Amino acid sequence: MLPFDLFEYQSRLTKTKKRMEEKGIDVLLVTDPANMNYLTGYDAWSFYVHQMLAVIIDEPQPLWIGRYQDAKGARTKTWLHEENVYAYPDYYVHSAIHHPMDYIGQKLVDLGHGKKTIGVEMDNYYFSAKAFIQLQNNLPNARFIDADLLVNYVRLIKSEQEINYMKRAAMIAEHAMYKGTESIRAGMRECDIAAQIYYYMLSGTEEYGGDYPAIVPLLPTGENTAIPHLTWTERSFQEGDAVIVELAGCYKRYHVPLARTVSIGNPSEDLQRVTPIVVEGLEEVLDAVKPGMTCGEVEEVWRKSLKKHGIEKEARLGYSVGLNYPPDWGEHTASIRARDTTVLQPNMTFHLIPGLWFDKYGIEISESFRVTEDGCETFTNYPRDLMIKDPFIINPHGGKIS
Amino acid sequence: MLPFDLFEYQSRLTKTKKRMEEKGIDVLLVTDPANMNYLTGYDAWSFYVHQMLAVIIDEPQPLWIGRYQDAKGARTKTWLHEENVYAYPDYYVHSAIHHPMDYIGQKLVDLGHGKKTIGVEMDNYYFSAKAFIQLQNNLPNARFIDADLLVNYVRLIKSEQEINYMKRAAMIAEHAMYKGTESIRAGMRECDIAAQIYYYMLSGTEEYGGDYPAIVPLLPTGENTAIPHLTWTERSFQEGDAVIVELAGCYKRYHVPLARTVSIGNPSEDLQRVTPIVVEGLEEVLDAVKPGMTCGEVEEVWRKSLKKHGIEKEARLGYSVGLNYPPDWGEHTASIRARDTTVLQPNMTFHLIPGLWFDKYGIEISESFRVTEDGCETFTNYPRDLMIKDPFIINPHGGKIS
Repeated sequence: MLPFDLFEYQSRLTKTKKRMEEKGIDVLLVTDPANMNYLTGYDAWSFYVHQMLAVIIDEPQPLWIGRYQDAKGARTKTWLHEENVYAYPDYYVHSAIHHPMDYIGQKLVDLGHGKKTIGVEMDNYYFSAKAFIQLQNNLPNARFIDADLLVNYVRLIKSEQEINYMKRAAMIAEHAMYKGTESIRAGMRECDIAAQIYYYMLSGTEEYGGDYPAIVPLLPTGENTAIPHLTWTERSFQEGDAVIVELAGCYKRYHVPLARTVSIGNPSEDLQRVTPIVVEGLEEVLDAVKPGMTCGEVEEVWRKSLKKHGIEKEARLGYSVGLNYPPDWGEHTASIRARDTTVLQPNMTFHLIPGLWFDKYGIEISESFRVTEDGCETFTNYPRDLMIKDPFIINPHGGKIS
Repeated sequence: MLPFDLFEYQSRLTKTKKRMEEKGIDVLLVTDPANMNYLTGYDAWSFYVHQMLAVIIDEPQPLWIGRYQDAKGARTKTWLHEENVYAYPDYYVHSAIHHPMDYIGQKLVDLGHGKKTIGVEMDNYYFSAKAFIQLQNNLPNARFIDADLLVNYVRLIKSEQEINYMKRAAMIAEHAMYKGTESIRAGMRECDIAAQIYYYMLSGTEEYGGDYPAIVPLLPTGENTAIPHLTWTERSFQEGDAVIVELAGCYKRYHVPLARTVSIGNPSEDLQRVTPIVVEGLEEVLDAVKPGMTCGEVEEVWRKSLKKHGIEKEARLGYSVGLNYPPDWGEHTASIRARDTTVLQPNMTFHLIPGLWFDKYGIEISESFRVTEDGCETFTNYPRDLMIKDPFIINPHGGKIS
């Protein structure tokens, strides 16, 4: 029932404990939902309330501590034993009087961890400033140290099974890009295209069903292509519009992102000019990637390629990707950018997204890849070019579902 | 272009400043994306990096401070003047060396706010423990106070335009529930139903396009109906399964949630027994709601109704709902539960979700409503009962899009 065998979860836990030991951490409090999933298989949309794992250096299993109505999921959908699941009552939820960290802090004291060195994920979305303060108030004799990204760094190199899941996510990404963009044409609303993309992202393939992506499909259009994180509107596409489509296939929470740029009718001169520059740079980077290089060196390949064409841009070129939850599919560890000293190793996985955003337009053509023994391979196989659409032909396969 | 007129944004800002004044706050740092949207119209999936508004008590406009590539959205898609938008370079993003709050803290010092009383949203997802510490380090002479939910409480009573948007969201919710559940039958995969629901949530109606909901559709099935926050799997439905469908229509980020329970074939005896109890309780609550009551008094109606049938459950019955972003559509202010002293006023809006979760099954039949001058009215009009499906009839309108 769990997506990985027990051996894999235990190996992840062992690697985590090794890093805890190196940092002198007795108890690691894991609030990142991806890290909770990674260590135990716990997977539910319950991260909007405070919850965590406590990884105790000399205990065989982490503890899960969360909301009462979610505890059954932790008991039955993870490899944790029932007695390692603790739950706070509902009156702690979004209350002005009670804070879940009061319960959790007291529980840790009761279990004998009140004087330990406790690692916390300081910059995680699901570990608020208030959560930290309430925890400190309840554990006055503990020593807290920043263990942000400790588990994320364990996640950096993927196992064979993780790569398999990403390959399935890639099939879903390709399918969603192909089918979702099929009906882009003048007169179609942005929201209808978003709907189609979602449909194919979730229904996936006959063999593999899709999961929700950590970021919604982004489809900035027209001048908005200069603003990469806008979501769709009710506006109808017009002839001459460019549309950037950035989406991810997601399988068992593993993501493979893919971005392409669509032109409805003839592309602008600007787009015609920059597209081959982006494709050339992208391909030079993919040709260059091999184990032993640093992320910074990879970025240099891109920067030099652009410079040949007189373009200089300071932006991150890519980032480590894999298991995740909203609001981000990036893992917040290695970034492909200047001065990142991460050394590439086989089965590291990245989203390489050499976006160029100018004043009135932008372009994105991206690839997700894994580092192999002697180079890299992309997860998806999708034409690397502008997608040029006839603005008025109604695609017979692209209609609404009735 | 903005979803509300300038007068409405300014009235929101005035109300916010009044609360700031009451608390002695000179500068309010707003990191909740819903609050950022509420005050300025800013709407992008950029909240996965640190960003904020700074509302300064004696300045006519808030400042937007965020990532360089998102700043154009703040300059062109809000009512803020260009000079009130500040952006940090990309090397601050997910970096081990640079933290965006270093930039933001220094910017506030440069602008003369280094010695002010600064309000921060202490328990917000997008204000991490690290963000708070870095901000304090950069603003050593400022006094920080907890201003969590300050803007959320301004959002509690909706304007006419907000109610209009929620009515559109309600049309989308009804449509998505009707069309999305149409094809639930034995043999269909959970992910395919999630895909259909998403399709209708986003394509919306011909007049009103849908936006992404802050929570994905939840559809726990079979024994998993006892675990409310599980998301879909690749499993195929079977005859006899119950399925809880909880979704929201979303229009311009305003949510109207709706939950129903579906039985594939004859419902279990348990479901047959509890359904009328839930419906009766729900209707007694809706009949009782009127301005002047407290949320605690509303919950009492439900508790008494259940008690007639020998059921006692301690869980939150509902919560304030409206404008939001992932990971939650609830506003974290008023909750319909014991001891909540919020006094109901016209145009407060709630999701009333009297879920009952037992050991092996659960049921949810919910309504979203607004408080009126003399009672309440529900946003959606959807039969309040179990939805019983023939397990084997293939609905001719419910197939995949080809």
